[in-house]
Amino acid sequence: MEEGDTHSAANTITCKAAVVYGPGQPLVIQDVLVDLPKKMEVRIQILYTSICHTDLGAWLGTNEAQRAYPRILGHEASGVVESVGEGVTELKTGDHVVPIFNGECGSCDYCKSDKTNLCEKYRVNPLKSVMVNDGKCRFRSKEDGKPIFHFLNTSTFSEYTVLDSACVVKIDPTAPLHQMALLSCCIATGVGAVCNTAKVQPGSTVAVFGLGAVGLAVVEGARSRGASKIIGVDVNPDKLTKGQTMGVTHFVNPKELEKPVHEVIREMTGGGVEYSFECAGNLDVVREAFLSTHDGWGLTVVLGVHATPAMLPLHPMELFDGRRIVGSVFGDFKGKSQLPRLAQDCMRGVARLDEFITHQLPFEKINEAFQLLVRGKSLRCLLHLSSPQLN
Amino acid sequence: MEEGDTHSAANTITCKAAVVYGPGQPLVIQDVLVDLPKKMEVRIQILYTSICHTDLGAWLGTNEAQRAYPRILGHEASGVVESVGEGVTELKTGDHVVPIFNGECGSCDYCKSDKTNLCEKYRVNPLKSVMVNDGKCRFRSKEDGKPIFHFLNTSTFSEYTVLDSACVVKIDPTAPLHQMALLSCCIATGVGAVCNTAKVQPGSTVAVFGLGAVGLAVVEGARSRGASKIIGVDVNPDKLTKGQTMGVTHFVNPKELEKPVHEVIREMTGGGVEYSFECAGNLDVVREAFLSTHDGWGLTVVLGVHATPAMLPLHPMELFDGRRIVGSVFGDFKGKSQLPRLAQDCMRGVARLDEFITHQLPFEKINEAFQLLVRGKSLRCLLHLSSPQLN
Repeated sequence: MEEGDTHSAANTITCKAAVVYGPGQPLVIQDVLVDLPKKMEVRIQILYTSICHTDLGAWLGTNEAQRAYPRILGHEASGVVESVGEGVTELKTGDHVVPIFNGECGSCDYCKSDKTNLCEKYRVNPLKSVMVNDGKCRFRSKEDGKPIFHFLNTSTFSEYTVLDSACVVKIDPTAPLHQMALLSCCIATGVGAVCNTAKVQPGSTVAVFGLGAVGLAVVEGARSRGASKIIGVDVNPDKLTKGQTMGVTHFVNPKELEKPVHEVIREMTGGGVEYSFECAGNLDVVREAFLSTHDGWGLTVVLGVHATPAMLPLHPMELFDGRRIVGSVFGDFKGKSQLPRLAQDCMRGVARLDEFITHQLPFEKINEAFQLLVRGKSLRCLLHLSSPQLN
Repeated sequence: MEEGDTHSAANTITCKAAVVYGPGQPLVIQDVLVDLPKKMEVRIQILYTSICHTDLGAWLGTNEAQRAYPRILGHEASGVVESVGEGVTELKTGDHVVPIFNGECGSCDYCKSDKTNLCEKYRVNPLKSVMVNDGKCRFRSKEDGKPIFHFLNTSTFSEYTVLDSACVVKIDPTAPLHQMALLSCCIATGVGAVCNTAKVQPGSTVAVFGLGAVGLAVVEGARSRGASKIIGVDVNPDKLTKGQTMGVTHFVNPKELEKPVHEVIREMTGGGVEYSFECAGNLDVVREAFLSTHDGWGLTVVLGVHATPAMLPLHPMELFDGRRIVGSVFGDFKGKSQLPRLAQDCMRGVARLDEFITHQLPFEKINEAFQLLVRGKSLRCLLHLSSPQLN
């Protein structure tokens, strides 16, 4: 076969991808060339992808250091293995997989430690835009042959993409693949923050700040762990209904209060919740989430992404009240070894993935899907990529 | 007996105390009247007391909200029970005891929880200056009968003092009482931060920022837990010798470095220590201590006291590198139930208390002892109070 043949397992593939050329510019659906996977790399066919706020931030170029154009964004997806590079033995053509932006090599000191899910080489890194192997791109423009940058180890806004095998997780082939797309970011992040980071106990009280997809995944996790009270906090009153569907037992809208949220939550819970989760990416919210927990034993888990220069709005002496605050990346899941189990848990109802998919569109309408997220209309809009399975 | 009789078990006692009348003013040794202990209170005869930086801060009035004069400071001490109030059954006259500024009632939700040592009613509270029972003082000036305020649940700069029984710990009568004074603050705080808060594991690496008495107690704790590397950090080169005596394996003086401390410590430890302890009460030091730990699993324990308005010099995104930071009060010891065991551990050499007592003076020279601490000359100057045992 010649270079450029579509769906070639042996060579470069030509396919459609959504390419970003500058901050906030509409994504361009165009033909790209996707190179063969090199050593320990995997080329996968993306069947479903959705858009997360991290994609939104990268698209808008919120953090200047992360600007690299042209670039293929996207990290929440599912698909099948198209071909594997030299040395890849645990994956083969046809395997059902989800990409993970926070990889797991399995052999570094970090992967061997039970205290972290940050792999030395393949951990989440928004500044990375090329492959680790050779510092080059596997994407090129079909038109001029120029390289197109990668994003977050994944770049799923493309019919085909190349990832390090450390960033590809094989899942149960009977799992509904369209739902599994959500596993690779919002579900793992939210459910994992509850089950792995906080280790929420049955009967405990929980407050969730920000009821987007990640926040609602936290709610799902808290519900499945048997939390007795799940307080949802959001300034958008539309979140009430969805929140209640997911398991929120009390809803608080800070805009409707005459005092700080933490005072209200402390009153509702006899001194504060045992666990609070900050899923809004807002420093004022971090502080409210922290103060909403009970002194002595409250734990705040930060999941939201925060602009670079700001500092934690906490006084060091406040740490002496026995409240703790920690960050959680990818729900503290070690992706390759633990996500297959999460997929099965979701099939058993630990998190009801279908509730998160509020919209579905063909891949070509990706700009429309971005707008749905920007305007807070969608939780997740699932994009269907054209593929043999879908045609 | 009449009011004013010295050493009366049945009535008001007249004795010597060191009274502060204003910020930074020399303490005045004068006669004070010490009332009978009321319900669930205990009157103890202080035999030994020492001075901690918290006394220093209160003496200088660093935090304006804590200014209450005239006042009897002091919280690190040891003595014997002189008399007990109504309802006190677990203590009796003659028991060897140490006062604790962070009490334990044993029956509130906090005391029943294994997650905190902050008692609802008797936790450390620098703003408190009267007894909980009736909001009044048990000290009065012999000269004019006016009340003299309490400090930190303890007020040990007096031959006799009254405490809530929740703040009095009975210890092994064979323990050397003069050394046991240190148990009630610096030793419990430092050793507990290592053993209870951080739970330092054998073979792990530790950095201690600030080698005062608390920092050196951390060193003692780390040594006794089998830490493989204990890096002492202090700007005072005189700390090197003492540090090494206590178990410091490496000494770093930030003033002698051409790059930030955390970079040096990371180089010394292959990426950072597993545990760092901030015992300096300085925000820049907090940041260095935090960054000196290994990403993925590093834990920073804050022990130092920090001025009120400042904020934690950490960026929320830095929590996503897997480093954690927590505060530790009184070494996370539940004082009444766990300090007796610590006293025995110290008798077995877990912490060599004698190494901390660098000076000894009669109580009357308390102002001299303050100056020794202010000038960084003493770790602990043990003050001997005049008493039958010492006469």
